[in-house]
Amino acid sequence: MLVFQNKQKRFGEWYREVLLDAGVLDQRFPLKGCNVWKEYGTKIMQNIMVLLENLLEQTGHSKMHFPLLIPENLFGKESQHLRGFEDQVFWVNRAGKRKTSRKLVIRPTSETAIYYMFSLWVRSHADLPMKVYQTVSVFRLETKSTKPLIRDREMWPFNEAHTVHATPEEAEKQIEIGIQVYKELLTRLPLPYLLVKKPEWELFPGALSAYEFYTLMPDGKVLETGSVNNLGQAFSKVFNITFEKYDGTRDYAHQTCYGQSERLLASVIAVHGDDHGLVLPTSIAPTSVVIVPILYAKGAEEVLNYARMIDRLLKEKGFTATLDQRELTPGEKFYYWEKRGIPIRLEVGLLETEHRTVTIVQRHTLQRKEAPLEDLVREIEEALNALDQDLLTRAESLMKEDMGSVSNLADVPDAVEKGKTILEVPFCGENNCKLLVEEETDMEIIGFSMERNTARRRCLVCVKEAKETAYLAATY
Amino acid sequence: MLVFQNKQKRFGEWYREVLLDAGVLDQRFPLKGCNVWKEYGTKIMQNIMVLLENLLEQTGHSKMHFPLLIPENLFGKESQHLRGFEDQVFWVNRAGKRKTSRKLVIRPTSETAIYYMFSLWVRSHADLPMKVYQTVSVFRLETKSTKPLIRDREMWPFNEAHTVHATPEEAEKQIEIGIQVYKELLTRLPLPYLLVKKPEWELFPGALSAYEFYTLMPDGKVLETGSVNNLGQAFSKVFNITFEKYDGTRDYAHQTCYGQSERLLASVIAVHGDDHGLVLPTSIAPTSVVIVPILYAKGAEEVLNYARMIDRLLKEKGFTATLDQRELTPGEKFYYWEKRGIPIRLEVGLLETEHRTVTIVQRHTLQRKEAPLEDLVREIEEALNALDQDLLTRAESLMKEDMGSVSNLADVPDAVEKGKTILEVPFCGENNCKLLVEEETDMEIIGFSMERNTARRRCLVCVKEAKETAYLAATY
Repeated sequence: MLVFQNKQKRFGEWYREVLLDAGVLDQRFPLKGCNVWKEYGTKIMQNIMVLLENLLEQTGHSKMHFPLLIPENLFGKESQHLRGFEDQVFWVNRAGKRKTSRKLVIRPTSETAIYYMFSLWVRSHADLPMKVYQTVSVFRLETKSTKPLIRDREMWPFNEAHTVHATPEEAEKQIEIGIQVYKELLTRLPLPYLLVKKPEWELFPGALSAYEFYTLMPDGKVLETGSVNNLGQAFSKVFNITFEKYDGTRDYAHQTCYGQSERLLASVIAVHGDDHGLVLPTSIAPTSVVIVPILYAKGAEEVLNYARMIDRLLKEKGFTATLDQRELTPGEKFYYWEKRGIPIRLEVGLLETEHRTVTIVQRHTLQRKEAPLEDLVREIEEALNALDQDLLTRAESLMKEDMGSVSNLADVPDAVEKGKTILEVPFCGENNCKLLVEEETDMEIIGFSMERNTARRRCLVCVKEAKETAYLAATY
Repeated sequence: MLVFQNKQKRFGEWYREVLLDAGVLDQRFPLKGCNVWKEYGTKIMQNIMVLLENLLEQTGHSKMHFPLLIPENLFGKESQHLRGFEDQVFWVNRAGKRKTSRKLVIRPTSETAIYYMFSLWVRSHADLPMKVYQTVSVFRLETKSTKPLIRDREMWPFNEAHTVHATPEEAEKQIEIGIQVYKELLTRLPLPYLLVKKPEWELFPGALSAYEFYTLMPDGKVLETGSVNNLGQAFSKVFNITFEKYDGTRDYAHQTCYGQSERLLASVIAVHGDDHGLVLPTSIAPTSVVIVPILYAKGAEEVLNYARMIDRLLKEKGFTATLDQRELTPGEKFYYWEKRGIPIRLEVGLLETEHRTVTIVQRHTLQRKEAPLEDLVREIEEALNALDQDLLTRAESLMKEDMGSVSNLADVPDAVEKGKTILEVPFCGENNCKLLVEEETDMEIIGFSMERNTARRRCLVCVKEAKETAYLAATY
């Protein structure tokens, strides 16, 4: 399709232009990786977070708010966690004109702050499970080059959920719930995803096992959009999160955590957008329908009244509608709302007013259609219903096109040449083979298939028995 | 009233107990002035912020999100602003294992971050007015002892609005709008307030003039709960926020800013609470009605079904209702919801079920009443409608009791002795008199009457002609 030419060919440039032109972000704040969220971006991002928070509330998670600053001794309690983040954290050691008595970390994530509180809150099995979440900013000194919404130093919004359980089985069940919540969220956006089990060397610092969601970006790279971690007792042993069991003995609790961020919006923009700008699904569009009256001296009052009547009608029927009465030309308004990806534009001019019709333009197809007023509500309902399915179908088919399968390292270049950017490969699990694959291909082993490998295939490198079906892709 | 004995006599202790027992905050995080917001506190605070944000949206303010970290050179641009905050800011100067190239301030407020962006966004009169706001955390090293929700080092949530205008008149008009928004907000909470013009020496760093809302706390001190500042061109000249006027010439813009914080919740708790815990107005209560089924072996199923029917009925009628089916005794449930200040409790036992009645208990009066089922909806409507008016009347009458008027410094101790904690006094405006008053009385001149002083009174100290009607009170 023509409308994808720029997006596909020069994705980086296209992406930055869309962020600016649609009023999502302004990147000119004089501190690298720290963005200014403009009105429109803030609204869409907030809508995404409302979807996520509602899913978390429905599955028994409680919203809380924990401090941003964490004393060094607390942050350093779990040594693996500390080592995992120490190159990336911002430190506070002055306040006013004095040195602080302890060094403080600006949270890169909140395990240590929250788990200290868990150690005070968890007393007995009756307190469990405990499930909390918060939506905040976190800070990481990204050493790779920053990319807005993808690799920021101030990550906002960052949604992190943390749970505590009495048994490993309950923790494992919670992992499934966390995965289910994220699947549901991605489906509403609607984004196709690849869900993998993370290889050991990619685990969140301190985690026992982890699962990662990836979305495919137009440049063929994959983006992490949600990780779910089973922490086992690693943190509970360090933070002394213990509880009295039914039998009166005490044990360390079992924990999970999972997180989401502004990368959800990066994916929505990159996956659904086109050369005209954003394309938003109904679930997060700040308004579903925009009405643009096309006014000339002749009949202006009648056209405006007709447009107002349509605006009232749609609002009565429960649609979010915006009547654009700004002093701009119709062309300027079309451009403005197209850039912003509003699902449906209604054009109302003299002809429409006289014929009691409306011109309906769908954003994601750019198709125009004139419909009689009495069919308007049904037409809009149908168009909105079709939109999310169309977006999902389109994105799924693009993802499918990019997915391939190879059995030998030697076949990788050929597959990549054919546009296969996510490769399913048989893998023995050994570090030597991992290193060789990654060196030879400029791709990474991003994770393993969730299904057990029963095909008795042989490792793409060493030809020993494959233990995993691995995915190979370039990452951000 | 008996229920106010603890609150009045030992307010500090009562306040901390309520915060803990009602599940608002946990103050045990090992960093002074940084609180953990628990589920219930987060919900109420969020409800207050939704009220405020809706009022801001309705008056044309756009929500945005600006970075937390501000480079030192940006923060220091306006010298008065810098001096006003330099003793209170947290500094970042390490990231990972390296020194940062510039020192970074953690925002104590966002003028400097936002006004840098304004200088990029404002080009012509057509861009004005510009009105933005954000709801974030800000950080100040409070040097006085911290007090949760009143004097925190992490202030969350902090809602700050910033506006830009073409003329001083428009900025002055915006000040009135800001004041109106805060008046409306306080009325919905519903909190009586004292609105004053701030004395020059109390101005926000960089401001031309300012207005402050105060609420009266049970210990007789007043709490700042909302300030509105006219910044004139102080910042626009430093940040170079200029625009092209209609006539083609350029001028510096005129600015205002106004802010609100978690102190709103401190006021709600302190003003409306009683010895049984929180008392919440309907506007912010997470649920209006809680239904407690009183179950014994006999008839348990019938009672529960009856309670469920009532729950459904209330939800159908648009009330927020919670059916408490936890495995606790009715007494434990009563205590739980009383502490949390839910406006109405319905008790449903075997008697009520057989008689088709409901026992209604109002939280703010603790009055009980049995009503036939068919009157329930009307009874609840009436009770909820009465609640906010009752709370306001009660709080207003307490505030009125505490307000007095004196004409001579010598009369102050006597007035204070009589329980007058906010004193209206005639004041010449001179610094000497201010210092003397504050030294002699342990109170401060918190501001001047909004009405012009026409009474030709004489200064309470020097007996020269009074220029202002000032308010004297002890502050937090």
